[in-house]
Amino acid sequence: MTFLESLLAASRRNGSLLCVGLDPDPRRIPAALRAAPDPIYAFCMAVVAATADLVCAFKPNIAFFEALGPAGVATLRRLIADMPRDVPVIVDAKRGDIGSTAAAYAEALFERLGADAVTLSPYLGGDSLQPFLRYAGKGCLVLCKTSNPGSGDLQDLELASGGPLYMEVARRARDDWNANGNVGLVVGATYPAVLASVRALCPDLPLLVPGVGAQGGALADAARAAADINGERVIVNSSRGVLYAGDGDDFADAARREALRLRDELYVAVGAGKAGA
Amino acid sequence: MTFLESLLAASRRNGSLLCVGLDPDPRRIPAALRAAPDPIYAFCMAVVAATADLVCAFKPNIAFFEALGPAGVATLRRLIADMPRDVPVIVDAKRGDIGSTAAAYAEALFERLGADAVTLSPYLGGDSLQPFLRYAGKGCLVLCKTSNPGSGDLQDLELASGGPLYMEVARRARDDWNANGNVGLVVGATYPAVLASVRALCPDLPLLVPGVGAQGGALADAARAAADINGERVIVNSSRGVLYAGDGDDFADAARREALRLRDELYVAVGAGKAGA
Repeated sequence: MTFLESLLAASRRNGSLLCVGLDPDPRRIPAALRAAPDPIYAFCMAVVAATADLVCAFKPNIAFFEALGPAGVATLRRLIADMPRDVPVIVDAKRGDIGSTAAAYAEALFERLGADAVTLSPYLGGDSLQPFLRYAGKGCLVLCKTSNPGSGDLQDLELASGGPLYMEVARRARDDWNANGNVGLVVGATYPAVLASVRALCPDLPLLVPGVGAQGGALADAARAAADINGERVIVNSSRGVLYAGDGDDFADAARREALRLRDELYVAVGAGKAGA
Repeated sequence: MTFLESLLAASRRNGSLLCVGLDPDPRRIPAALRAAPDPIYAFCMAVVAATADLVCAFKPNIAFFEALGPAGVATLRRLIADMPRDVPVIVDAKRGDIGSTAAAYAEALFERLGADAVTLSPYLGGDSLQPFLRYAGKGCLVLCKTSNPGSGDLQDLELASGGPLYMEVARRARDDWNANGNVGLVVGATYPAVLASVRALCPDLPLLVPGVGAQGGALADAARAAADINGERVIVNSSRGVLYAGDGDDFADAARREALRLRDELYVAVGAGKAGA
């Protein structure tokens, strides 16, 4: 099963366009877990278990695990190995490097860590993506227009050939990088008009849409703009909004309630009857 | 001592613009080291010890360590802790992420791993660089024009305002991102004309120049084009050419001979009497 097949299967089974981002902050681990052998693992697994039937994907952000030192990466590896196999795991790594280095990253993320998909930065060009793209069963989600305020610095620059840089990235993703059918794009929820224009250019690519909740985005507008003609192929990510929905020892219940609310809001926004299930 | 001060001090002390890149490949570790408790550590430390008086910096590429799994990152941490303190360590990480994630990367690289400088990708814009830039004593080397064939895909795109994208990155590095005086640029050795135009735009920024040797670049031309008015502030990197100069158990001697040859070639290219020492 490819990443895209696995994504669509989870999305239809769970009636969900929601992705829960796993960005664990050691300072926000509930008291009840602090005595666990690996509190970060225990926290993430509890949230995964509480939400796995409500999401289309999980997205651990590797930076948060790397910030814990070498033990943090081992935690992430064990976490991915133990997560339900029927929900794809997108490792948010935003890698972008060349030749043998890109090959080393691809091996580390896909083979050692067990990612089903990764996020990639396009600045170094198509050959920097190839070592990832050649894993035809894995997803390669390329940064297009990100949700941060400074995303305009480069991404919005108008090209002499017409249109902003991010649309050229979308065009190349569609025309040049998707030979194996495993490419998607990352477009922030903060720009529904951008989402709509990227979707119009790329009717078939999965779109990962971060920026909901803690980063401040209008969920329903974003989901409507990003969904394909069947109301699918959009992965709306919420990280802190779900992880820290409750700060006490009922965090898993609170995470489930918030995930349910977001799932249903997305379902209604995109149109009941369209989003599978 | 800031990264730039440390770089200039090492460069002058050793009469060198050469940086040795540490990209260890477990398949190329000499036989004599394979029984060591940590062969990658032993190999890198032997090369460091053999070349530390010939270089202005070392540049471990974190991808090669991450490819070894969590133990590899622990190896890199120990390696940096044990390397000579008077030669700055640039961790080639090409990170680029937003907000709290960028802050987590900065903490991981600067505080936990012990990097004196890192490489960063600019695609996400100025606010994605800020969590790194605020470490005023650390170096932030931003990808501008990379050495790989596909670097033109995005970096060479002509802007409506005139000039290629990479020159806009150089301009922003100079005007917007360098408030703490800790920014540099990464420009591949394969494009001496690009090096010259970036240097003309940014007379004071340190330039990291990869692409010599295994990636095929014309060393002397690159160094001449990239050097500042004093023949300094250029960091010419060679990785595999030095690491694997010899394949046998004399690898450290071979690495030293090759580093010496490159150092002298750079010294002559930039002009004796200009490059310090």
